[in-house]
Amino acid sequence: MFESVCLGREISKKEYKAIEDELRTQLFDAQQKARKANIPVIIILSGLTGAGRGGVVNMISNFMDEKGIRNHTFWRETDEESERPYAWRFWRKMPKNGEIATFFGGWYGDYIRQLACEEITQDKFENIMHRWVSLEKALTASGVAIIKLWLHIDKETFKDRHEHRVKHNEERHFAPLDTQIHNRYDEIVKSAALAIKITDKVNASWTLIDAKNSRFRDATIARTIASEISKAVAIKKKRADGTVLHTPTTNISTINAIDLTKTISNDDYSKELKKLSKEIGELTYIAYQKGISSTIIFEGSDAAGKGGVIRRLSNSIDARITQVIPISAPTEIELAHHYLWRFWNHIPLNGFITIYDRSWYGRVLVERVEGFASPYDWGRAYAEINDFEDQLTENNHILLKFWLYVSPDEQLRRFKEREEIAWKNYKLTDEDWRNREKQDLYNEAADEMFLRTNTANAPWHVIPSESKKYARIEVLKIYKKRLEKAIKESKK
Amino acid sequence: MFESVCLGREISKKEYKAIEDELRTQLFDAQQKARKANIPVIIILSGLTGAGRGGVVNMISNFMDEKGIRNHTFWRETDEESERPYAWRFWRKMPKNGEIATFFGGWYGDYIRQLACEEITQDKFENIMHRWVSLEKALTASGVAIIKLWLHIDKETFKDRHEHRVKHNEERHFAPLDTQIHNRYDEIVKSAALAIKITDKVNASWTLIDAKNSRFRDATIARTIASEISKAVAIKKKRADGTVLHTPTTNISTINAIDLTKTISNDDYSKELKKLSKEIGELTYIAYQKGISSTIIFEGSDAAGKGGVIRRLSNSIDARITQVIPISAPTEIELAHHYLWRFWNHIPLNGFITIYDRSWYGRVLVERVEGFASPYDWGRAYAEINDFEDQLTENNHILLKFWLYVSPDEQLRRFKEREEIAWKNYKLTDEDWRNREKQDLYNEAADEMFLRTNTANAPWHVIPSESKKYARIEVLKIYKKRLEKAIKESKK
Repeated sequence: MFESVCLGREISKKEYKAIEDELRTQLFDAQQKARKANIPVIIILSGLTGAGRGGVVNMISNFMDEKGIRNHTFWRETDEESERPYAWRFWRKMPKNGEIATFFGGWYGDYIRQLACEEITQDKFENIMHRWVSLEKALTASGVAIIKLWLHIDKETFKDRHEHRVKHNEERHFAPLDTQIHNRYDEIVKSAALAIKITDKVNASWTLIDAKNSRFRDATIARTIASEISKAVAIKKKRADGTVLHTPTTNISTINAIDLTKTISNDDYSKELKKLSKEIGELTYIAYQKGISSTIIFEGSDAAGKGGVIRRLSNSIDARITQVIPISAPTEIELAHHYLWRFWNHIPLNGFITIYDRSWYGRVLVERVEGFASPYDWGRAYAEINDFEDQLTENNHILLKFWLYVSPDEQLRRFKEREEIAWKNYKLTDEDWRNREKQDLYNEAADEMFLRTNTANAPWHVIPSESKKYARIEVLKIYKKRLEKAIKESKK
Repeated sequence: MFESVCLGREISKKEYKAIEDELRTQLFDAQQKARKANIPVIIILSGLTGAGRGGVVNMISNFMDEKGIRNHTFWRETDEESERPYAWRFWRKMPKNGEIATFFGGWYGDYIRQLACEEITQDKFENIMHRWVSLEKALTASGVAIIKLWLHIDKETFKDRHEHRVKHNEERHFAPLDTQIHNRYDEIVKSAALAIKITDKVNASWTLIDAKNSRFRDATIARTIASEISKAVAIKKKRADGTVLHTPTTNISTINAIDLTKTISNDDYSKELKKLSKEIGELTYIAYQKGISSTIIFEGSDAAGKGGVIRRLSNSIDARITQVIPISAPTEIELAHHYLWRFWNHIPLNGFITIYDRSWYGRVLVERVEGFASPYDWGRAYAEINDFEDQLTENNHILLKFWLYVSPDEQLRRFKEREEIAWKNYKLTDEDWRNREKQDLYNEAADEMFLRTNTANAPWHVIPSESKKYARIEVLKIYKKRLEKAIKESKK
C-alpha cells in the first residue's frame, strides 16, 4: 500500500517560497468556505513518529484564521475519559458547524500502536475499525467533513530520525509508549495498512502523504485539505435536495399488543414501593462501589406518568450519585452538532446513574413526526443509535429503555385533570393537544423504533401505564433485577 | 448562633398535607419568575450529616419543573477537577440565565469538614471563606441569585440518627469522610458558625433551618427559596437603572512611557529566535513533567503583532501540550453566564499550556469602550479578575500577561499593508478602522487596567512592538525566564 508513497518527492526551499502564498490563500479560503457552508471539519493527523505531525499542525494553524480552528491531542487520558466509552474523548471535542478541529492521531493512533505492540488481537482491532467506519458514516451523513491523513516515511528515514533525536537529546518522550514503537516500523506499517484498508470509504477517505521532505509534505497536505473541503461543500449543496433513505417497515405493532388491564391494589403498591425503594437504594450503592453505571431512559405517550416514575426512582437513590436529565428542544450549540452529541456529553462516570426524561429517541419520534428532521436524517438514526448504545453498554454499564403507554381515553382524562390542578397546569401545553391529534403517526413511529432498536444488549421495556401505580412498580422491579444481575456478573 | 434554630418546631402530617399544594405552587411559581427574569439561581444545601439534605433535593426537584433544575454533588473529585483551582468544579456546573442548580454542600461543605477535622488551620479556613465572599459578590453582581441554607439538628438528634443508621445498616458511606464526622458534632458546628459569620452578606445571606422535623424543614426551605427568588427579581429590576460604581483613576499613563525605539537586527533576531525556541521547547517539556501549567495572554493595539508572537511561541512548544484560544464576541451560551465563565472552562490541566489571543481583559477594554458592558459591570471587573488570577496562580501555575503596543503611525502603515496582501486581508475589518478613531478611549481604558490589575503574582509585561521582531524575542525571553524560575522553585 505504501510503496508508491515513498517516492522521495521534494520541493526545494526556493520552490516552496514561490508557492507559499498560494498555499496559504488556498487553506484560508477553504476555511472560509467551510464556515460559510456551516460545515464542521475534522482533520485526522495520523502517521509515523517523526513524520512531522507537529509541524503540520503548526502549518495549518499558521495558514488559517486561528478563530475557528482548534487542535486536540488526546495524548493524556484523564479518569473522566477512561471511565467512559473510548469515543467520548472525541465527542467532547467535536467541532461545531463552521469550525475546524485537528485530531492528533484521531481515533486510529492508539489502536494502531496497540496492534503493532500485540496488545490487542487482530479480531478486536478489526472490530474497532468497523466501529470507526460507523462513526464516520454518522458524522459525514450529518454534514461533517472528515479529512484523514497518514504521514508516511520509509524505514531508513524513520530510523535515522529516531537516532538523530536520541543523539541530540531531542526526544520529547511525553508518551512513554513511543519508546516501544521505534523498533517496530514494520508492525506499525502493517497495522496502519489494515486500518486504512477497512476504513477507507468514499465519505471519509484516506490520503497517504509522502512526508520525508517537509515542504512537499506541507504543500500536499494544504492542497488536500483545500480540495476535501471544496468536495464537502459541493456534497452538502447536492444533499440539500433531500434523498430519502428510509425503507418503511411492515405493520407489526408493538403498541396494539399492550395489555392495558394490568393494575395493582393500593395496599400492595405502598408495600412494594417501600420495599423496592429500599432495595434499589442498597443495590445502587453496591453497584456504585463496583463501578457499574446506569443509564435509564423514559419515553412514551404524553401524560403516561413518566415524571411520577422518575420521581419514585430518583427518590430511591442517593442524590449524590444520580442525575435526572430532561430533554427538550435542542439549544443553539446542540443544533450546531450531530444530534447525539448532547447525549455523549451526559454519559455518567463509573458507578453513577443518569436518568433521562425523553432521550435520543426524540430523533425518530417527535422529530420524525413533526418534520424537524428529514427522512434522510431520521432514517439513518436507528443504526446510529444502535452503535451508540453498543458503546454505552460495553463496560459494566446498565442501559434500560422504558416506554410508558397509556390509552387515548385515559390520556384525555389526565389532560383534563391537569387543566384543573394549578401546579399541574404547566405540564399541559397546546402542543400536547396537537400531538394527541397525531397519535397514529406517533404510534407508527414508535412501532418502527421498537422493531429497529430492540437489541439484545438494550431491549425496550414496554410498560402498560393505564394504572400509574402498576407502571411505577414494574419499572422499579425491572431495574432491581437488572442491578442484581450486573452485580452478580461483576468481577470487581 | 444555632441556639435559636433548635427550638424543635414541628409540622404534623395533617398540617403538612394541608399546605403541600401551596408550597408546591410557591416553588413552582418562583422557578417561573426566575426563568422569566433570566436569573440563574444557585441553592447551596449545606448542613449536618443526617439533617436530610438528600430529602430536600428530592422535595425541590419534585415541586419544580424538572426542565430547568439540575442537582450537583461534587462528591467525587476527578483528576480534571483536582488539577485545577478548587472553584473550577463549581464554575463548570454554573446554571445559565433562568436555570436553577442545587449545589450539595456547595463550596462550604468540604472546608467545614476539614477545619472540624483539623486538616487545615483556622487562618487558611478564614482566607478561603473570604474567597467565597468575593466569588458570591461577583456572581450576585452579575445577576445570579445565591440561596444558602444550613440544615441544623441538635447534638442528640445527630447522634441518634447516626446510631440508627449504623443499627439498620443504612450507612451509605459513599464518602468515607463521613465516618470522621460523627463524633465531631461540636467541631462541625463551630466551623460552620465561623463560615456563616464570615460569609453572611446582604447579597448572599444564610438561612439556618431547624431540620429535626422533616416537614417543618421542607416547608421552611420551600418558603425561603420562594422569597429569596422574589427578592432577586426585585433587585434585578431595580438594578436595571444602572448604578455607576466606578471611580476614575488619576492620570498615570503606562502607555505614554513606552520606549518605542527598541529594535533588534535581523541577524540577532534569527539567532535569538532559534535559540529561545529550542530552550522553551526543552523547558516546557520539563515543566510538563513537573506539573507546572502556564496561561499566557496577549492584549494590545490592533496590528501590534499578537498573531506573529503567538505563532513563534506555539511553534516552540510541543503541540500535544499546548492550546491557542482566540477570544472573540461571546456566544449565546457564554452570554448566559458570568463573563469569566468561559475562561474558567479553559484552565489547563497540570503541565499543559493555554495561550490566549485576547482574554478576560476584554471586559475592561473593548466592552468598556464600546459600551457592551455598563460601568456597573466593568467597574467591578478589576477586582473579579484579580480574584480569578489569584486562584489561577496558586498551585504551580505560571500566568503571563503581555501588552503589545504599537504607535498610531506604525499601526496605520500595517493596516495599509494588510489591505494589499490577499491572505492578510481578512485580518483587517471596518471595526479596526473604527477602533483606531477611538484610540484615546482605548488608551485610557488600558491605563486604568494596568493600574488596577498589575498585581505581584500576575504583573503586566508591556512590550514595545514598533519592531515586531524585537517584541517576539522579548516575549520568548520573559517566558523562558519565568519557566526557569518555576522549575527551580518546584518541589517535584
